[in-house]
Amino acid sequence: MKLATLKSDSKDGRLVVVSRDLKRAADATQVAPNLLAALENWATAEPRLQALYEQLNAGKAQGAFDFDAQQAAAPIPRAPQWCDGSAFLNHGNLMQTAFNMPPIPDAETMPLMYQGGSDDLLGACDDLPLPDEAHGIDFEGEFGVIVDSVPMACSPAKAASRIRLLVQINDVSLRAFGPREMKTGFGFFQAKPSSSFAPVAVTPDEIGEAWKNARVCLDLAIEFNGQWFGDPNGREMNFGFDQLIAHAATTRKLSAGTIIGSGTVSNAGGKKGSACIAERRAIEQIANGAPKTAFMKFGDRVRMEARWQDQPVFGTIEQRVVQAPKE
Amino acid sequence: MKLATLKSDSKDGRLVVVSRDLKRAADATQVAPNLLAALENWATAEPRLQALYEQLNAGKAQGAFDFDAQQAAAPIPRAPQWCDGSAFLNHGNLMQTAFNMPPIPDAETMPLMYQGGSDDLLGACDDLPLPDEAHGIDFEGEFGVIVDSVPMACSPAKAASRIRLLVQINDVSLRAFGPREMKTGFGFFQAKPSSSFAPVAVTPDEIGEAWKNARVCLDLAIEFNGQWFGDPNGREMNFGFDQLIAHAATTRKLSAGTIIGSGTVSNAGGKKGSACIAERRAIEQIANGAPKTAFMKFGDRVRMEARWQDQPVFGTIEQRVVQAPKE
Repeated sequence: MKLATLKSDSKDGRLVVVSRDLKRAADATQVAPNLLAALENWATAEPRLQALYEQLNAGKAQGAFDFDAQQAAAPIPRAPQWCDGSAFLNHGNLMQTAFNMPPIPDAETMPLMYQGGSDDLLGACDDLPLPDEAHGIDFEGEFGVIVDSVPMACSPAKAASRIRLLVQINDVSLRAFGPREMKTGFGFFQAKPSSSFAPVAVTPDEIGEAWKNARVCLDLAIEFNGQWFGDPNGREMNFGFDQLIAHAATTRKLSAGTIIGSGTVSNAGGKKGSACIAERRAIEQIANGAPKTAFMKFGDRVRMEARWQDQPVFGTIEQRVVQAPKE
Repeated sequence: MKLATLKSDSKDGRLVVVSRDLKRAADATQVAPNLLAALENWATAEPRLQALYEQLNAGKAQGAFDFDAQQAAAPIPRAPQWCDGSAFLNHGNLMQTAFNMPPIPDAETMPLMYQGGSDDLLGACDDLPLPDEAHGIDFEGEFGVIVDSVPMACSPAKAASRIRLLVQINDVSLRAFGPREMKTGFGFFQAKPSSSFAPVAVTPDEIGEAWKNARVCLDLAIEFNGQWFGDPNGREMNFGFDQLIAHAATTRKLSAGTIIGSGTVSNAGGKKGSACIAERRAIEQIANGAPKTAFMKFGDRVRMEARWQDQPVFGTIEQRVVQAPKE
């Protein structure tokens, strides 16, 4: 099943079902006004949404219309929590090697995760308004999951059973803030403005065998200003989403609609490129003694897409960085 | 004006106005169903709530009833963001001295802040369910503000103009996780379970001259298991709430209803005690070479109250730590 949220007068948007080929959509507000409400009542909502999805794919949904990704908000524009892991250790290892950072203790046995702001998540084609190019504007291509409610201190196995939807994310990062925020020990804050989401959230069955070991085993194709930048695969996560969820829930409940991110997708070996500029700069630093690729300027564009059976799964993130209005 | 949120079928609770002496309440759902909705529409809601507040104080509000803090949820049980500063440098300095931690770079010129989970904020008298005493369970007494929408990159002066309400907070902390999470650079996550809030949020005029330089200049009286633990004053914040808000909004908008915390209230000189156990342990470590006061056990109780003109301003936090149900 594929679901999306169209922009509306409500901050939560309005729920639609999207056809498997992403071409058509059908209003689903008779099931739930928005995706968050559907997740809060999933046992009731899921079979009704599934029935509508089957009608839509069969060309039999009344009032169906063309799906326009430009009109899509993030699947959950204001989510209960946005907990972003850093589960591809290859990425962290490259950064540490390039910039002489000390290794993170226990990183191979315990997931890394920070809490992101979750009240203003952006749509796939929304501009990225940011205050200053000097902040080191970067994209980060990620996969994520949206969970049902998760009890405190639950096991990875139980956590896996609470995964409802898969998503694709651009976790925008401002690299000028990161080193200072890491040194303080308080973690990322100014370094992490609003994240953006591909237009469509999908149930795991929509990617068949590519949903494996609680990992999205798809290539995430990244283009920066129209040029190939990388297409790393999600299968190399050192921790599965089951483990990331259990980590997040160790000392707290997670509300239905909480989003858990994988961190920048990153593959060992160097042939798959990178899903963020900082990692390419790290590779350049290691190879040549200095980074070469510049961070994003206003007007720069990023495109992110993951395909299964030669079709985009989540739709496409296509965004441009712009200067935020001065206050 | 004093406002509270009573528990209801809605996760956002229902809005009531509370009398200045905290004894009576009046339903305010004809103005807005909950406090978050009131903040999202403050220009319209504020004068109507103020009128109701004046009627209530005059004993003329129709349908008024006794206010019961036991029935209060957090003022905003699921808030857009919970951004917690650490603005009392005395606290950080004590911790660093006691435990030989390196000083935090720029801490005197740039606020420290982490992002907390904001989807499950607890009421003043709610039990604190936690999984394990071995996690080093601690309270932290704080003040906070609730803001209207704040634009990205706004000045401290403009930030000050967006403060709508003051709150009093128990920022529960699990000390066993803190050092590792600080070392990773990703910041606090498992160390920060749900925070709790005193039952009543108040407009700044409710504390007269004690709202000064964007600081809540009140003693915060802390009792641990019925014994005095501290009564540090909020005036010694090294950064005002105006600066904390501007820091939080440097690279992001803040949605109306975002909560900004002061961090543990802490005063220099040692006579005012502490607002958290970790700080008392630091003082013991410095004085005697070892900490003596134990962290909280299941069944332990904490009480927090701030008075102005000899009356509690926000009501009282009175909580007990309990074992979370096993999953």
